[in-house]
Amino acid sequence: MDVFEAIKKRHSYRGGFEETPIPREDLHKIVQAGLDAPSGRNAQTTQFVIVDEPELVRSIGHMHDRNKAMQQARAFIACVLDHEPEPVYEGMSFQVEDCAAAVENMLLAITALGYGSVWIDGWLRVDGRAEAIGKLLNVPVGKYVRILLPVGVPAEQVKQPAKKPFTQRAAFNTYSDRD
Amino acid sequence: MDVFEAIKKRHSYRGGFEETPIPREDLHKIVQAGLDAPSGRNAQTTQFVIVDEPELVRSIGHMHDRNKAMQQARAFIACVLDHEPEPVYEGMSFQVEDCAAAVENMLLAITALGYGSVWIDGWLRVDGRAEAIGKLLNVPVGKYVRILLPVGVPAEQVKQPAKKPFTQRAAFNTYSDRD
Repeated sequence: MDVFEAIKKRHSYRGGFEETPIPREDLHKIVQAGLDAPSGRNAQTTQFVIVDEPELVRSIGHMHDRNKAMQQARAFIACVLDHEPEPVYEGMSFQVEDCAAAVENMLLAITALGYGSVWIDGWLRVDGRAEAIGKLLNVPVGKYVRILLPVGVPAEQVKQPAKKPFTQRAAFNTYSDRD
Repeated sequence: MDVFEAIKKRHSYRGGFEETPIPREDLHKIVQAGLDAPSGRNAQTTQFVIVDEPELVRSIGHMHDRNKAMQQARAFIACVLDHEPEPVYEGMSFQVEDCAAAVENMLLAITALGYGSVWIDGWLRVDGRAEAIGKLLNVPVGKYVRILLPVGVPAEQVKQPAKKPFTQRAAFNTYSDRD
């Protein structure tokens, strides 16, 4: 799929999934896209756990009381970061940015391969969910699940919400020249 | 360009650029890819300034004493965030992630259109550079330039640094099963 088409088609999918399992070859391809993302100082510290063992997948999915994409996911991809990342430049680390760039690449790969997903982030940080999932996945002390992607073949058509127009969010040469 | 090819080809380019100017149509297409990125709760708070006015481009580029891609950039794209973003979910905001996802989309668009770029982030946070560039671009009080992308047609071939292998950064079903 053309890159601009994938970027345009990608959308947050919270509907149900078909029972179709996801071949490991596809999961590998999706996560490789995440590994190919840039990282601050090329540190490549973002780690991934791919979950496709059905019972484990169900245990994670059933933690969500509403989101059908979580509940019916056929696989999950978890991005794992350090609680106290090593600085890589002038005392700074860029793990949050690195992880987000990797997730965006994976969402585009998911879209191109005909799957659906939704970026699960804030939900993990509430009620000890990241910790509970980290335990299920044997994430070591000092690391935590930052972002989770449920993956499956969409069973429903969803309407993408409208995006703000270009001129409200972008301008040439001066910030002030926008609607 | 196929999305997987763009993901694989994208790399940090710090070399010189040809004098070829960048048509606004292409800059528009690149920034539209950024606007199409997901954002937490679809808040779409990341703002963009596209710099192609030659004198303004030079003023920004010459702030870097080393990076040729900065010095010879034909255009810049600046991502602008809020110093104190509105919470969008359980007291959290996701502007840093939103911005990073938008930047990754733009880097893929840049790659697909035959341009080169490099993600400039930490450098902006040192010696008041973000503030100085914000002033040049009339970024209002309360907002700041978080990420900057120099853009141009690469004049040099660079060798991509090696990436860590899949099995060092990813594993199935348990974190511990990795090299």
